[in-house]
Amino acid sequence: MRYELYYWDGIQGRGEFVRLALEEAGADYVDVARGSGGEGAMLRLLDGQEVEHPPFAPPFLRAGELLIAQTANILFYLGPHLGLAPADEAGRLWAHQLQLTIADFVDEAHDTHHPIASSLYYADQRPEAKRRTGDFLKTRVPKYLGYFEKVLARNKAGDAHLVGAKLSYPDLSLFQVVAGLRYAFPKAMARLKPNYPRVIALHDRVAARPRIAAYLTSTRRLAFNEHGIFRHYPELDSAG
Amino acid sequence: MRYELYYWDGIQGRGEFVRLALEEAGADYVDVARGSGGEGAMLRLLDGQEVEHPPFAPPFLRAGELLIAQTANILFYLGPHLGLAPADEAGRLWAHQLQLTIADFVDEAHDTHHPIASSLYYADQRPEAKRRTGDFLKTRVPKYLGYFEKVLARNKAGDAHLVGAKLSYPDLSLFQVVAGLRYAFPKAMARLKPNYPRVIALHDRVAARPRIAAYLTSTRRLAFNEHGIFRHYPELDSAG
Repeated sequence: MRYELYYWDGIQGRGEFVRLALEEAGADYVDVARGSGGEGAMLRLLDGQEVEHPPFAPPFLRAGELLIAQTANILFYLGPHLGLAPADEAGRLWAHQLQLTIADFVDEAHDTHHPIASSLYYADQRPEAKRRTGDFLKTRVPKYLGYFEKVLARNKAGDAHLVGAKLSYPDLSLFQVVAGLRYAFPKAMARLKPNYPRVIALHDRVAARPRIAAYLTSTRRLAFNEHGIFRHYPELDSAG
Repeated sequence: MRYELYYWDGIQGRGEFVRLALEEAGADYVDVARGSGGEGAMLRLLDGQEVEHPPFAPPFLRAGELLIAQTANILFYLGPHLGLAPADEAGRLWAHQLQLTIADFVDEAHDTHHPIASSLYYADQRPEAKRRTGDFLKTRVPKYLGYFEKVLARNKAGDAHLVGAKLSYPDLSLFQVVAGLRYAFPKAMARLKPNYPRVIALHDRVAARPRIAAYLTSTRRLAFNEHGIFRHYPELDSAG
């Protein structure tokens, strides 16, 4: 099946978590808004009167008759189809639980530069951003990374993956979060790195997987920038 | 099966979304931290070294051998067991997608009074809270409520439910969000009410369901208060 991914052009954003799963699996997919359809094709599904189950926001995925939104929901659907989720119910719920915790982490990373309103510019909420980032780097990043370090350490199948003995979609998403945090907060992350060896090793192993490595150097992988979730503002990196 | 729900005592919080589903279904469940087990029983599962799949945070649910965390994940699991989710895959993904959108809305409602850090008191972030709430009431609440109004209007089975022709767990959660917003922002919500007749009607119908009505007047339903997600600070209600 050819999957259609709909997400804003120009940023990795939340679409990237879906892209990484599709890329790792070598799936047949088209990134609609970045192709000939443009963002217009995406906006018609967001705003079109005839869409019975409208998404609240991108990303969303068309898979045959299904139109699925919410990043974690898309991955929950794709996981078994792409060989990136356990076969049993307990394993699938556990993978999804981890993905939802990653989603919370991502929301908090976004709000470091937009603590007041997404509708305002960063420049209009800079003092608040500095305050929020200070807490994020001091209390939230250690809490989340410490949690995933613990999950890896307790995995009875070994600490190479979050879920069981095989790669699953939360591994790919955790890679993306670490990559994003390193882009946004290089100084703070260099300081924190020694505390989370399993998380860092997971990041490095994912980056070295053949299909992911090829993807990361392709033109399909957009660079991090100051329009996405993970933004590098040096004054925030120093807030921690 | 007797379900064990684990959540902080003293607040409705995110546990309430699970409680409403259990109550509507007349399920056999125990609210562990509010019973003889106390919060100690909950903290042992959060922090215990022997827990292979530790939750990041409450709420979590024990269902036989399963230990499931993340509110939306718990409801995804419970839905079919409690008769509160569609039977087909497309319907279940749609219900979950709506629940995840409600979860995002709830996160934003929480951050109105804690825009800088959950680890700080409200009093330590009052000016920022006023600013964030102003945007929340002006742009975010209309965006979310308008979305759910649209979902109800487009439901081919009628506008009585979010998903198909039957009550499902997102209906119960949307009731809770409307109730919470009315508690937190009575003036703003009175002003907004005429714009979302289907959402308000859904709230009223859920509140009138026999088991929910009985639950709401029972001692099991905690009152809203200024420790939970939805908090009434008059100065914030006037920020919109």
